[in-house]
Amino acid sequence: MRKWIFLLIVSVTTFNSRAQEINADLLEKYKSIAKQITRTALEERKGYLMLRELATFGSRLNGSEGYYNAVNWVKETLSGFDLDTVWLQECSIPHWVRGNTEELTIITNNDLKRNMDIAALGGSVGTENKTITAEVIEIKSFDELEQKNTMVKNKIVFYNAPFDNGELNTFRAYSKAVKYRVFGVSRAAKYGARAVLVRSVGAGNDNVPHTGTLRYDESSAKIPAVAISTKSSDYLSNLLQLNDNVKLELNLSCKNLPDTTGYNVIAEIRGSEFPNEIIVIGGHFDSWDKGIGMHDDGAPSLQTVEALYLFKRLGIKPKRTIRCVLFANEESGGSGAKKYSEFAESDSANYHLAAIESDRGAFTPRGFSVTADSAIIDKMQNWLPVLNECLIDWIRPGGSGADVGRIKGTKALLGYVPDTQRYMDLHHSSNDVFEAVHPREMELGSAAIAVMALLLSDFGL
Amino acid sequence: MRKWIFLLIVSVTTFNSRAQEINADLLEKYKSIAKQITRTALEERKGYLMLRELATFGSRLNGSEGYYNAVNWVKETLSGFDLDTVWLQECSIPHWVRGNTEELTIITNNDLKRNMDIAALGGSVGTENKTITAEVIEIKSFDELEQKNTMVKNKIVFYNAPFDNGELNTFRAYSKAVKYRVFGVSRAAKYGARAVLVRSVGAGNDNVPHTGTLRYDESSAKIPAVAISTKSSDYLSNLLQLNDNVKLELNLSCKNLPDTTGYNVIAEIRGSEFPNEIIVIGGHFDSWDKGIGMHDDGAPSLQTVEALYLFKRLGIKPKRTIRCVLFANEESGGSGAKKYSEFAESDSANYHLAAIESDRGAFTPRGFSVTADSAIIDKMQNWLPVLNECLIDWIRPGGSGADVGRIKGTKALLGYVPDTQRYMDLHHSSNDVFEAVHPREMELGSAAIAVMALLLSDFGL
Repeated sequence: MRKWIFLLIVSVTTFNSRAQEINADLLEKYKSIAKQITRTALEERKGYLMLRELATFGSRLNGSEGYYNAVNWVKETLSGFDLDTVWLQECSIPHWVRGNTEELTIITNNDLKRNMDIAALGGSVGTENKTITAEVIEIKSFDELEQKNTMVKNKIVFYNAPFDNGELNTFRAYSKAVKYRVFGVSRAAKYGARAVLVRSVGAGNDNVPHTGTLRYDESSAKIPAVAISTKSSDYLSNLLQLNDNVKLELNLSCKNLPDTTGYNVIAEIRGSEFPNEIIVIGGHFDSWDKGIGMHDDGAPSLQTVEALYLFKRLGIKPKRTIRCVLFANEESGGSGAKKYSEFAESDSANYHLAAIESDRGAFTPRGFSVTADSAIIDKMQNWLPVLNECLIDWIRPGGSGADVGRIKGTKALLGYVPDTQRYMDLHHSSNDVFEAVHPREMELGSAAIAVMALLLSDFGL
Repeated sequence: MRKWIFLLIVSVTTFNSRAQEINADLLEKYKSIAKQITRTALEERKGYLMLRELATFGSRLNGSEGYYNAVNWVKETLSGFDLDTVWLQECSIPHWVRGNTEELTIITNNDLKRNMDIAALGGSVGTENKTITAEVIEIKSFDELEQKNTMVKNKIVFYNAPFDNGELNTFRAYSKAVKYRVFGVSRAAKYGARAVLVRSVGAGNDNVPHTGTLRYDESSAKIPAVAISTKSSDYLSNLLQLNDNVKLELNLSCKNLPDTTGYNVIAEIRGSEFPNEIIVIGGHFDSWDKGIGMHDDGAPSLQTVEALYLFKRLGIKPKRTIRCVLFANEESGGSGAKKYSEFAESDSANYHLAAIESDRGAFTPRGFSVTADSAIIDKMQNWLPVLNECLIDWIRPGGSGADVGRIKGTKALLGYVPDTQRYMDLHHSSNDVFEAVHPREMELGSAAIAVMALLLSDFGL
């Protein structure tokens, strides 16, 4: 233990002294490298071509055939890049399956029936070969749930909290609305609800349900929960105002199987001067099964794969080690990131200087959001003339991401931030397909991540 | 004349002294206004709803029924906003019609025929009920044309200069490639060519031809010129390498009719303190007839209409006059802008302080490009904390636009700059449709233009 503390002190001192002073010549040199990286990405479109291959495996739901096939493919792909190491790190992942049955029928008092498209929430229990038939109660907020808690028993609770399209940043609107999807089920179960419907947490006004994970409290019964589209939510809400007697029939085959094995895919270029200092770049490789997870997080995770490719392609030798980590299971608990952070902490021979997460879609670059001391952020802002070459306009304090955010002891955790305007139209839904990714937008993100990783690697912090 | 100079001196002195000092309180106040403008735009989507109406008129080619219907509609729409003035300013516009026939057939030496989709360039002469049949010669640059000028006679010249997808900014790539479309026809005619094909100036790799204007020299014969898609260009180029004897048949019904009347649509909110100082905001209202001109320039021009709407909707009273000008005929010579600039110059009672052009698509905002003294640009950069509220990240020296760029004597000419990555996929082509415009992206642009116009109006320069 004492030895470990000693090593840590030595390391931190050493790393501090290694940060390189930036001058105009250096900026010009790296501007020229950034231009070359950007042009190569835009012209060759290696990431976009990889994404086209990834799309052929379908969705990458934890434990699914598509997931394992995609992991094997990306490991093979990385192995073809002549990197220093490529390996798989095992971890435990949940194994939830949707099955073939997802049926929701609305029955009004005149016995008219109408089916609506739904998407069971990830991790939801099913109805176990039975049909749940129950009245429905619309709830607009958790406050309203508390006020009406005596009216919930034996009903299906329909959370109908709108997505705030007046927000500038769609992720902020998402954060405000997603609590009903995550926590709504157990809060309703506590008052005796039989099932939960959630208005999709999405910016679009369409017929597409958006899935996503839920969380069951240990103290409440596990009841089924499904998402319905924004249009269906509006329809149902109107119906409830006009009809006294609206019932729903719900039939779901989804279920939770025993946990299984997933993999963090790890590949790196060892640093030419400081190989024991590591810059992680990564995203998650699992996806939901509605759509095929192209913006979430196929393309963004492949941007970090492409960054390594671009260094090899252009003969760039980073001074510090640049390690790509494709995390397992971000969508249902983050066990991949947990495994990696434990590994990083136990690896006393190496030091994680910084990490960049790419998990906000593959749209046109805007900036980097950084968790670090303000002096470090100030320093990074001096790099903006270089980063402008791949359309990065700002570096601001802010969060990094669910995966790299778990890594301890770094000097900076970064989130790559592309434009957010279209992301919540497709997130966790069948809209998240290959055609929704624009090659130039994706490639500029690859370039931005590569350039930022290179600056961290060569200049230090 | 002497009186005019005296007035000008007085004016400039007066206007200089009117620029307001910015302090933190003022910035906070305008940040709050900017937030309100942005939220209202995103929630109400007035501009996007107007665009949906505009789309029903079809394309707005100079002199077409769709153009006149759209002008009448937008004048009526503006008249419903309770503005201080709404009027039409007449000008002369060219009247080119495409007609019903656009046929290009490739004939190879084994008499195989294949038709290709084409788009006559705007202003091109037709083939006058005859078919031009001729050999084709591929030319990659004007240098190559000069080298091969003796081989051009009686042939169809095929300009096949690629769009540089390695450029960060698609407008820069466009600028490099568009000279063949504009000047290629007369340069080929000079050496006796019978017609010209131009590889479409577009970023996509697809089957969609992109039209656009051409320029005939008075000294050369007027020969027909058409665009073919990028995929067709690659096909034809391959064919020419493999076959010695490739002929083309070209049949075009397009023609130039006598000039006709167009309109600048002008509407304003008079300034509450300095009504004689004018901030122009505008875009052009004509479009090409392939697609329906939604990004070019339907949505961007309606963003300037929406800016006026937002001021009225929120009860904002700008200190200086904010005038929306929807320019006639940007696409074929700029006669609308010429007319307006002459009018502005002759209107000695008023002074044009600044002008903002919106003609780069309706994608997510990035910045403003400004033609002004550096001291003025520095001053405007102090406003960025306000403009950040509508996703404007920078103000940089640069060009404004083809229309407002003609206005003389202003202190600043601005171009509103959204993201450029997808624009050249659809510019001047059948891809430029309503579905290509994203409501949030468009609305943020309206907010950005409204906020910048308000800052110019209230702070002065």
